[in-house]
Amino acid sequence: MTHPNPEFQRWTAAVQAEVEAALARELPAADRAPARLHEAMRYAVLGGGKRVRPLLVYAAGEAAGAARERLAAAACAVEFIHAYSLVHDDLPCMDNDVLRRGRPTVHVQYDEATAMLAGDALQSLAFEVLARHRIADDPADQVEMLRLLAQAAGSPGMAGGQAIDLESVGKSLSLPELELMHIMKTGALIRASVLLGARCGTLANGELEALDRYAKCIGLAFQVVDDILDAEAPTETLGKTAGKDAAQGKPTYVSLLGIAQAREWAERLRQDAHAALAPFGERASQLRGLADFIVLRSF
Amino acid sequence: MTHPNPEFQRWTAAVQAEVEAALARELPAADRAPARLHEAMRYAVLGGGKRVRPLLVYAAGEAAGAARERLAAAACAVEFIHAYSLVHDDLPCMDNDVLRRGRPTVHVQYDEATAMLAGDALQSLAFEVLARHRIADDPADQVEMLRLLAQAAGSPGMAGGQAIDLESVGKSLSLPELELMHIMKTGALIRASVLLGARCGTLANGELEALDRYAKCIGLAFQVVDDILDAEAPTETLGKTAGKDAAQGKPTYVSLLGIAQAREWAERLRQDAHAALAPFGERASQLRGLADFIVLRSF
Repeated sequence: MTHPNPEFQRWTAAVQAEVEAALARELPAADRAPARLHEAMRYAVLGGGKRVRPLLVYAAGEAAGAARERLAAAACAVEFIHAYSLVHDDLPCMDNDVLRRGRPTVHVQYDEATAMLAGDALQSLAFEVLARHRIADDPADQVEMLRLLAQAAGSPGMAGGQAIDLESVGKSLSLPELELMHIMKTGALIRASVLLGARCGTLANGELEALDRYAKCIGLAFQVVDDILDAEAPTETLGKTAGKDAAQGKPTYVSLLGIAQAREWAERLRQDAHAALAPFGERASQLRGLADFIVLRSF
Repeated sequence: MTHPNPEFQRWTAAVQAEVEAALARELPAADRAPARLHEAMRYAVLGGGKRVRPLLVYAAGEAAGAARERLAAAACAVEFIHAYSLVHDDLPCMDNDVLRRGRPTVHVQYDEATAMLAGDALQSLAFEVLARHRIADDPADQVEMLRLLAQAAGSPGMAGGQAIDLESVGKSLSLPELELMHIMKTGALIRASVLLGARCGTLANGELEALDRYAKCIGLAFQVVDDILDAEAPTETLGKTAGKDAAQGKPTYVSLLGIAQAREWAERLRQDAHAALAPFGERASQLRGLADFIVLRSF
């Protein structure tokens, strides 16, 4: 997929490179004991991926004038949480998926016990990284950032959304129920990415709330587009097993709304995300680019 | 088992009651959605247990003159980490255990996916609780406490110890290798309990290092005694499947040293723990009681 804005593409490539280096640095070395666990952690995280959440951290950080080195720590923390959730999600007792980012999933490449422990250790590492680096002027703000990430990862957020997802297999959810599930399952960590990035810098009154509105829009748009891609794209393009949700009888935006209306809704969310960024002017150009990227990859 | 010191028994009962109430308060309500996940989290944590780690938090807190309400938050955090590790440890892909504290394990009572998510969410909750309450005068100290817990839980600590344990099945470990595994697997969180309790209060120069020495001794003693109990006690007394480690071909202190020498070593560690507490005088009486409790339960 190509993006119309070459400046945004350059920015994205530069941040992705910086994030890859930071992730590789923050992960335990593969030759340090217990080597198999550390290898599995590195395999889970360094296997590619678009790094959407780290990009959101950096873009929100730019909008808040944050120092670049702080953003690397926050970006690693959210990506470790994301990576751990994928590893656990792919396990036989959950989605039982064998393919992720075009490669065998962690429990296929290693074994189930190692995959579970690697996920567990990645969650700990997220908080360790966020606590070890100085990422806020006032340490009380850093404590609040740690709380924010923990809440987004736990039962009020991502883990809770997964649980609702599990319970929903074979059931028909209403649109508000589906929305609540996704707000928790994907939206909470996307929102945390934006807020952590912003809190690495300084914002004027009301700006954090505006970014929160933006984050909520793109969090939902992200899931709507995921459902569209899952329904339409072949497995080789997707890098993971396609059509899985529908096959498992999981409700999706496409099954509830149909493709055309799902696309319309994603576009509306993109426009709402842009509207929330109006007060930021030039400072928010990367956030705008990301909203476009998230939605337009489906068209 | 009875303990010779009635004052210590009264203190233990009072702290256990306070901790039970705090755990029940900090856990998500069982009727809040996703209810099944929240029920499983409560089942995993509120199923009894001696609350050794919370007791260590309170005892170390007393030695450091800490405010009681701070200790409740730190005690909940370490107990949530401990409880999550038991839930994941009991899963079929790990120890495949069906009995814990005399009741069906979480994946037996619920299902594997719910058990995995409940463990994941308990880990997040540990950090959330530790970040949400004000537990240090200086927020920078609180960030350090969060880092400490994350490190103790992750691959340099508990999760790493589990991974070494997995790799050790059917192998013969040397005594130093077995010790390193246990220092990570159980010792790291016991040490974190003592250090977090202490950091809720104020210590003089050198006192934190003394508590660290104490923590290392009782962490090892705890595992040596666990191996003795596992080798000797019947399943009904233990509340979990007895003789499991030996049956799985896992190396234990008993298999390496024999019962008599394992007991001697536990006793030596108890005395070293007492020696480390010498500078504290009366302030450390509960820490002394806990060292005795941990070792004497095997005699």
